[in-house]
Formats: sequence, structure tokens, C-alpha cells
Amino acid sequence: MYDKVQKYQKTPYVQSDQFLVIAGPCAVEDEQTMLLIAKKLLAMGITHMRAGAYKPRTSPYSFQGLEAKGLEILKRIKEETGIAIVSEIIEAEQIPSYLEVVDIFQVGARNMQNFGLLKALGKIDKPILLKRSFGATVDEWLYACEHILVAGNENVILCERGIKTFETSTRTTLDISSIPIVKEKTTIPILIDPSHSSGKRNIVLPLARAAIAVGADGVMIEAHINPKAALSDQEETLDLVQLEMVLDELHKIARVMRKKLI
Amino acid sequence: MYDKVQKYQKTPYVQSDQFLVIAGPCAVEDEQTMLLIAKKLLAMGITHMRAGAYKPRTSPYSFQGLEAKGLEILKRIKEETGIAIVSEIIEAEQIPSYLEVVDIFQVGARNMQNFGLLKALGKIDKPILLKRSFGATVDEWLYACEHILVAGNENVILCERGIKTFETSTRTTLDISSIPIVKEKTTIPILIDPSHSSGKRNIVLPLARAAIAVGADGVMIEAHINPKAALSDQEETLDLVQLEMVLDELHKIARVMRKKLI
Amino acid sequence: MYDKVQKYQKTPYVQSDQFLVIAGPCAVEDEQTMLLIAKKLLAMGITHMRAGAYKPRTSPYSFQGLEAKGLEILKRIKEETGIAIVSEIIEAEQIPSYLEVVDIFQVGARNMQNFGLLKALGKIDKPILLKRSFGATVDEWLYACEHILVAGNENVILCERGIKTFETSTRTTLDISSIPIVKEKTTIPILIDPSHSSGKRNIVLPLARAAIAVGADGVMIEAHINPKAALSDQEETLDLVQLEMVLDELHKIARVMRKKLI
Amino acid sequence: MYDKVQKYQKTPYVQSDQFLVIAGPCAVEDEQTMLLIAKKLLAMGITHMRAGAYKPRTSPYSFQGLEAKGLEILKRIKEETGIAIVSEIIEAEQIPSYLEVVDIFQVGARNMQNFGLLKALGKIDKPILLKRSFGATVDEWLYACEHILVAGNENVILCERGIKTFETSTRTTLDISSIPIVKEKTTIPILIDPSHSSGKRNIVLPLARAAIAVGADGVMIEAHINPKAALSDQEETLDLVQLEMVLDELHKIARVMRKKLI
Repeated sequence: MYDKVQKYQKTPYVQSDQFLVIAGPCAVEDEQTMLLIAKKLLAMGITHMRAGAYKPRTSPYSFQGLEAKGLEILKRIKEETGIAIVSEIIEAEQIPSYLEVVDIFQVGARNMQNFGLLKALGKIDKPILLKRSFGATVDEWLYACEHILVAGNENVILCERGIKTFETSTRTTLDISSIPIVKEKTTIPILIDPSHSSGKRNIVLPLARAAIAVGADGVMIEAHINPKAALSDQEETLDLVQLEMVLDELHKIARVMRKKLI
Repeated sequence: MYDKVQKYQKTPYVQSDQFLVIAGPCAVEDEQTMLLIAKKLLAMGITHMRAGAYKPRTSPYSFQGLEAKGLEILKRIKEETGIAIVSEIIEAEQIPSYLEVVDIFQVGARNMQNFGLLKALGKIDKPILLKRSFGATVDEWLYACEHILVAGNENVILCERGIKTFETSTRTTLDISSIPIVKEKTTIPILIDPSHSSGKRNIVLPLARAAIAVGADGVMIEAHINPKAALSDQEETLDLVQLEMVLDELHKIARVMRKKLI
Repeated sequence: MYDKVQKYQKTPYVQSDQFLVIAGPCAVEDEQTMLLIAKKLLAMGITHMRAGAYKPRTSPYSFQGLEAKGLEILKRIKEETGIAIVSEIIEAEQIPSYLEVVDIFQVGARNMQNFGLLKALGKIDKPILLKRSFGATVDEWLYACEHILVAGNENVILCERGIKTFETSTRTTLDISSIPIVKEKTTIPILIDPSHSSGKRNIVLPLARAAIAVGADGVMIEAHINPKAALSDQEETLDLVQLEMVLDELHKIARVMRKKLI
Repeated sequence: MYDKVQKYQKTPYVQSDQFLVIAGPCAVEDEQTMLLIAKKLLAMGITHMRAGAYKPRTSPYSFQGLEAKGLEILKRIKEETGIAIVSEIIEAEQIPSYLEVVDIFQVGARNMQNFGLLKALGKIDKPILLKRSFGATVDEWLYACEHILVAGNENVILCERGIKTFETSTRTTLDISSIPIVKEKTTIPILIDPSHSSGKRNIVLPLARAAIAVGADGVMIEAHINPKAALSDQEETLDLVQLEMVLDELHKIARVMRKKLI
């Protein structure tokens, strides 16, 4: 069994009276755009920005991210604004260059069972955000988490982002029941990604409300100043006005849930 | 397309500022037990009791319900307490005997595409609670609903109860995204059944909170005075103290959502 | 457990050295077309024709079949040619009118757990072809079969027609492994429907070959003189030349499998 | 689109009149056992042996393979017997040590979208056996293949090993329709793995027959001298007598399909 997951004792990255909001564009864009987004997020009280420098893409012909240049942009944004950076890592070799920029190392759904990567991340001293593979059971996901813990890094955050089912009206099916199922087994914090799971801008708000009400420890939301100009995932990306509405409603339910947005 | 679903104009059974709570045992039990449950539900402010007289069961050897005798018990409970009765109908021939007892006719997941039954229910003047088949897309579900509307009965309520996926930690996977997806297409009210979808008593409470937060119009919860003695579905049935806790938390989120529990 | 399924002793409709081929159009069409198809099938050695008089359709606006008139046409075709008729029954009330026309009563995927219908069919003395619901496990399917056996009719044939999965290149996913899984548990014959499971004319031939090689007892194939003019399911329907090619290849593998096409 | 997959012109590793049989234990075991298995396989006419040195395992506590020592054993077996070695590679860094031992580099289901690994394998001059992820559509699988082709290695073999569905009687659901679907799009050879897809020894034989009948270019079968003593995957592993029966039946259907076992 996933012993270390079940006997988790570490003070978690998100505490039980907190609710973490991570927002930002799918991929890193030009420095000016990124700076503007970072400042707007901070002004709303959002302290963690997501943005991918290296993008794992189904097709080799899709935009693969700005790569090293994207990391540099993130570094400057972070230095200038102090915003915490959440970014996906694809290969173990990228770890050194990420270490000085990225605050939370995201492992994407496609790499959830890339055990070489998990082991390498088990040796660093940074929080790891482990997304659930869209083909993995909760059990397989917690075992993947155990791989990181066993390797030595106990700073882990889980993120539910939907599983593959026959339903086609959403990109994947958000398995909201996985939150209380995981909560029964471990104190490791668990987030929900309503943007990637649904692939639909219009339902991000109700899913975010459901996330906090079901007991998740946070959400990860795609947002951009101008979603129509975003380099990828336009259909699910909120503009900043929509993001502010989500925050408003999260605040209201947070009070009922006795949680504070961080 | 499902025109009548999309152009729905009727005043719905549950209005937009209301949240319907239906609770009760899986199957009708002896009269004394049922009377006690009905009174306790009413005392908590729950006005709709669910209980099955005829149970569609995967195995022909499982308990099939008290059948006609069950209906009689429900009739007496209703006369004595005034509680509204929600009960599943399996065959069109049962309609006459249901008409004088049952306030909401439930069509179970297995009969969602039993078109003969849907057509027959389209000719009566009672609300129909149409559960989603665990093998049906949202589209197929709305088409099934259209079958009832086209036949002449516009008093319909939808109920999401989980779909079949590879995940095994819950009995089915509650497709919570289906609520906002359906809301984009129609004003027909839609409930969530956190008990049957999960098959796990312990996660009914968080799923019920998620239901109201995501914008559902109600929940349908299995509850019993003594779940261990229930004739079926023991594992997911709440006792009445647990049910009261669910109500408390629903009330809190209802205020944020500007809804009233009915 | 499904005792009667597992202890099945009856001489099955398709014997272990036989392979049943059922072919024909999705829906009954005009008498002339049906007569022509029946004669062509018989000329190829195919003795069972499928054709639906009453069609259960997802949408209430799709063609619902010629209904009573369709049954009359089938009756005259049968009298004139002697071909055996396989046709889907949707409601128990149709049984009397079917009895004088239909040789094999088909229960469609959507009605696999319509227990009222199953019970009614359990009281007649005709073979029942029970299709697997696209949302049912093998276990649930065999339980549905048990409902018929328990009610008194032991003349049953199973038919695998695909299950709902996330794969979208075929309409459903043909679960070919279900054949040997069922064969381990019972001697009830089991067919494969490569037409409805795939929804693609081009892959019916390889799937039919796989069906006989995996040990199925037959196939059910949609075929029409002029698929482009068929009233429904055009995309998966073979023309009669293509059907003859399927037969040729089935004959070849049948020799290896020591089976005879019937 | 996956252009290079669709315009594939290379002489494929398995030609259209051939059927490749790969067999052997899940994991590399001690040298004596491996030598014995290799000799027995060759004696049956099987020229390709599978065996994993590095095993990607859901749990970090499961047997992870003999690793470097396993590779050494495979090297000696290959030198002594001449059998071709098929073995799974997990990390790009292993490539140099694999190059002198492994004839076909297998990418497992969990690494199908490990794009770093795919790119690295795109730069070597050895055939790559790309297994389908149990959460991937056919389209996503072919895109993963395109990643290898684009990187420069056109020597690819696909392998269907089952997808995740709600059915629980087999470990995954073998998507046999994927074979003709892939065949419509490309001439890249495609195998079926009846052992891992089903997880059941008893149904490997019928699934192997279905594989050749449906038009696959080969099978990959787990086999061991003494399955009960195998270090992993005991439930699905054939003993060598059972393997010989599979070969016999494959030969018979191969004649009908005008293919030769290699």
C-alpha cells in the first residue's frame, strides 16, 4: 500500500483552513503580457501564477512553448513582482534550470507514471504538484505520489483534472468524488483544475464553486488578459473579469467552509 | 435536436431560488418504520420522501421490493403525514395504481431509454424524475427527456446519478459537470443523487455540498433510521443524525447561493 | 450468482460446430425491397434475416420504423421465402403480434435491463437474442439473461455489440474478450454484431473474421441491396457484394475452427 | 495531422505476408531460466524473446526488475542463442546500455506520451515498439508515433494492449477494432498483446486467434517455463505447452490469412 501517503505527517503546503488559487495562462507568452497578468493577479490577491515554458503536446506540430526563453521570462517576472511560479516540468534534465525560477514543479497528467521523472523530483526540496493522469484510478495516482515520497520529497500537492470517459460534452469528466476519497486516505492537499478538465470557459465558475464546497484545498484556473489572443487553450481560458467573478464566489463559499483564500 | 427541452417555458417543479431535498430509504419497509421515517423527515423540514415499492434489480434473486403492498403502505403514510412521495415506476401498467399514491414518478437509470414507459408517462399529469442512465451521454439523456415532453407531459425533473467509468473507488463516477452543461441548454430542474452515484455513506455530505454549489436544483439522498437494518443499499445510506448534518451544511451554502431548501 | 446461466444444459440454438449468420437491413423497408433482399440472402446460404419493425431511437424525431405495417411485410416475406425472421421487440404488449411472424425475438441494448420485458419474454417459447447494453458489464448482462431463464424460457442467445468507452474512432468499443469470458461460464451461444459496434462499413469484414476466430457462435451483420438508400444506419451497412466477401472469409476460417456456417 | 504516419513508405519490420510472434517472461529472471526459455522458444520457431530488465511499476514496492544485471543476462543469452531481444526502455539515459543488447526497444503504455523519451528514441537506428496507453485514443497514439517519426526514426511497430473501461472481468478491454482503424491510416505494423490486455491466461489463446484473423501483424505473449514461479504477472503467463498450442492455432489461421509466422 501507499504507506507514506497514508501516514503523511508533514505540514502541508496548503493548510486545512486555506484554499489556494493558482491562475494564469496555459503557456508563457511575451514578457510584457506576462508582467501585466502577474500584476493583475497580485492585485486580485492571487499569489501563484501558472504558465508553461515547456508544453507536452499530443501533436509534434502544436506550439511546444517558449522553452528556455519562457523560463527566463518567468524568472524576470518573479524577480519584478514576487509572484510564485507554478510550471510544468517534462524531463528530469530540466530540474537545474527550473530550480532558480519555479516555486511549484508541476507534473502533468501524461507524465504521472514517468517514474524516472518522479524519482528525480523526489530528490529536490520544492513542492511537486502531481496531476492525475486521465487514465489513472485514484489508487494508481496515490501510488505515483508514493514514488515521490519514497524518493525523499514529502512536499506534494495533488491535482484532479478529469478522467477519460464516454461523455463528450466536456473534454474529460471531472471526478469530483476523488476529493473526499483522497481525503479519507491522506492529509496531502488536493486541488481541482476546472479549466483543463472541462475545456469550457462557461462552466469553470460553477466547477470552482463545487471544488471549494466538496472540500478541495484549491483550484488551478486558466486565465489571460485576452483569451482570444492566448497561444493555446483559448476555449477554456477566462478573462480577468471572469476570474474576478470566480474569486468573489469562492470567497463567499470559503466563509461557509471556514477557509481563507491564499 | 431536443427542441422542447431547449425551449422549455413551463414553471419548473423546483424554481430557481429553491433547492429540493428528497430523502428516505431505498425500498419501502414495514409501515411502522416508514411512518417513523416520514415523521422525522417532516420534522427536519424535508417534504419529499423517496422509497421504492417495485425495485429493478440486476439479479432476479435480490429483494425486488414489497411491490403492491409497498404502494399501499406509502398511501397510508401519505394520508397520515401529508409527505410527498417519490417512487420509481418500472412498467407502464403500474401507472394507474401509482397515480393515487405517488407525487413524483421516478424513472430509474436502467429505464432511461425504455421508450414505451417514457411515452406512457408523457400522457399523465404528474412530475417525472428522469434519472440518467450510467451508460448515457448528456445528449442521450436530454433526448430521453424530449420523448416525455413530446408525448405531452412537460413536468420533468432530471437527476444525475453517476456514469460508468474505469474508476472503482466509487460505484459510478458522479458527472458533476453535467449540471452546468444541462443548465446551458434548458431550464428543466436537475438534481444530484450523491448516494447511488458513490455507493459510500462517508462521501455523501461533501458531494451534497458540491451539488448545491455547482448549481443543482436539489439532491436525492438515501436515509434510514437504522441503516444497518435497511433492506437494501446499506453501505450508502445515512442515518438521520447524518442526514441532519447534511441539511445544516446545505442551509449554509444555500444562503450564499440565494436558494431556499424545500 | 446467475445459476441457471452457469448450469445451462439445454441444446443451444446454435450448436458448438455451427456458426450462425444473421444479415439484413436495419429497418423493414417496402415489401419489394425486403423480398429481394430475402431471396438474395437465401441464395447466399443465409437463412436468418434481421429487420426492425419497431425501432427504439435516441431521438423521438428519428424514423421509428414501419411498426405494425413492417410486421405485416415481414410476415409475407417469411411466407413467400421461408427465411427465418429476427426482429427487435420493444414492449411486452407486442408479443402476440410478433409470435406469428418473428422466429428470434431480439432485445436491444437499451432494453437489456427492462425487467418487465425480460419477464414477459421468459414466458414464451421462442429464442430470445439478448444484446448487451453499452453500459453493462459482462456480469450485469448475464444477470439480465438469468431473468429470462428464471421466468421459464431457456432458449436464449447472447449478442455482444460494443460498450461505451472514451475511444471515438468507432461508435462503441467491441469487447471481443467478452466472448471467451462468457464461454468460461456458460454454454449459451453468443454472437457478435460488428456493424452496430463499429458503425463503420469498412471494418465489418475484419471484425467478422475476428468473431469466428475468437470462438463466437455467429455474427449479425447489417446489409442492404443499396446501402445509400437504406432508411437508417447507412454508414455501417454492407451491400450484398461486400456481404458475400464476408461470407467467403468466414467459410475459410470456419474450416479451421471446425464449424459450419448456418 | 500525423502526416508521416499516414504517408509511411518504409519497408516495415513485419511485412504484409508475415506475422511476428514475440514471447517470453514479463521480467528477466536468472540466467539459467532465461537461457532455457530462449532455447525452447527458438525450438518452437519463435525468434523474438520479450523480457523486462527495468520494469515500470505502479507501486514503488513492487519488484522493479533486475535492472543493469538483467541487461547483462539478456546480452549473454543473445550471444549464446542468437534470439532477438525485445525489452522495455523507461528513461532516455538507458539508451546507450540498451543499444548493444536490445533489438526492439519497447515503450510501455505508461510512457506513450513521455515526449522526451520518444524524441530520444527518434534519434536511434533500432525498431521501436510503441504500446498504446490505456488512456489514449487511437488518434493520440498515432500522434505519439508521429513524435518518433518526426525525430528521425521511421522504424516503428505499434502494439494494442487494451484500454481502461468500466468492464472488470478483464484487466483492460482489448480494443480489437483499433487494428483495422489503424490499418486504414498507415502501413506501420501493429501487434496485439493478449496477455497484458486481459490479465487472464485462459483467454490468451482465443484472443491470439482473433488477433491474426482481424489482420494484426503479430502478437506479444507472456510465457514462462513455470508460470507459478514467475517473478511477476503470474496470472496471465502461459506455460510453454500452452504457448505451443497457441502457435499451432496461429499457424492454421495464418494459412487462411496467407501469412507466415516469423
